[in-house]
Amino acid sequence: MADKFCMVVSEGSFDKAYMPLIMGTTAAAMGSEVHVFYTFFGTKLVTKKANPKLPGMWRIGTGMFKKRMAKVGIPGHDEFMKQAMDMGVNFYACSTTMGLMGVTESDLKPGVKILGAAAFLKLAGESKTTLFIG
Amino acid sequence: MADKFCMVVSEGSFDKAYMPLIMGTTAAAMGSEVHVFYTFFGTKLVTKKANPKLPGMWRIGTGMFKKRMAKVGIPGHDEFMKQAMDMGVNFYACSTTMGLMGVTESDLKPGVKILGAAAFLKLAGESKTTLFIG
Amino acid sequence: MADKFCMVVSEGSFDKAYMPLIMGTTAAAMGSEVHVFYTFFGTKLVTKKANPKLPGMWRIGTGMFKKRMAKVGIPGHDEFMKQAMDMGVNFYACSTTMGLMGVTESDLKPGVKILGAAAFLKLAGESKTTLFIG
Repeated sequence: MADKFCMVVSEGSFDKAYMPLIMGTTAAAMGSEVHVFYTFFGTKLVTKKANPKLPGMWRIGTGMFKKRMAKVGIPGHDEFMKQAMDMGVNFYACSTTMGLMGVTESDLKPGVKILGAAAFLKLAGESKTTLFIG
Repeated sequence: MADKFCMVVSEGSFDKAYMPLIMGTTAAAMGSEVHVFYTFFGTKLVTKKANPKLPGMWRIGTGMFKKRMAKVGIPGHDEFMKQAMDMGVNFYACSTTMGLMGVTESDLKPGVKILGAAAFLKLAGESKTTLFIG
Repeated sequence: MADKFCMVVSEGSFDKAYMPLIMGTTAAAMGSEVHVFYTFFGTKLVTKKANPKLPGMWRIGTGMFKKRMAKVGIPGHDEFMKQAMDMGVNFYACSTTMGLMGVTESDLKPGVKILGAAAFLKLAGESKTTLFIG
């Protein structure tokens, strides 16, 4: 059985958007079963409208940063998430947060699943590594 | 023996205040022994004066957010922490940070214990899962 | 064989700069093999020019905070990192981020190694505890 690797994402900024995709696809390529749980402000990252910006005063530099990432071969956020799904990475929206934020199932990107905190903690308990990505 | 589940909280914002309470009470309800260690800016969350706000530009929306949370049944921060303690969740203030920030034992909420970094890392080493909540 | 303890640092602020040093030296003193991986904005913390500031509106209070830290015996960032290296703590710059940020090997502090995400995740998979320090 493959090792499980779990991540929680509670922030919606650009850097916190890419970390689980970079680490998730790397771990999936190494044979791990990957689960990423989006809660609080992180939940917007798995909606169709997701368009993460750099945090604080770096916000206006997001466009330039994306160009630099494209140059070193890192795809855009939506494209990267699709690639990760194709590699078997599992993405979940936190059911409690969805109620809190008024996010409905039809707002989510295709392929994103809905999960409760208890079910996620069960997955984390079975995992070799669980990271809380800010 | 119950599995140990540890969290570190180094930020004092609203979202980082609720994450360990939501995950901590969920894990406690699932039978885990839960330990939450507050250090740096997180330490103010376990003082009597704790009144966490949303981060950055969302700060002014904190009141509205609290109302939404109350609607879905999530209690206020102080009340939620008391409920977590009643469920057996352990809360610790970092002793080094207390010296650094000028926080004294009498500033802490009732029931919050004081712990050093070494003692916490020992608990973390015995835990199935340890998360650093920003 | 010593337990492995891994940390990832993706932010460059003052508090996120000190957390891996405080926890890393504590864990090393307790006999753990410690690995700290700097990625995204965290990468600047392992460059010669590193001069971390408190985040957001606390930025201007950094100098005062450093004085308070000195009073309780916590060394400056550069000095603290050297002490940690002397204790055997391993510091790595993320190779992908270096390309992205235009950081070269000669920009890194002496003793900092270069590592890819896959190699780091392999270390994390062998570790008892891995923390993502924001």
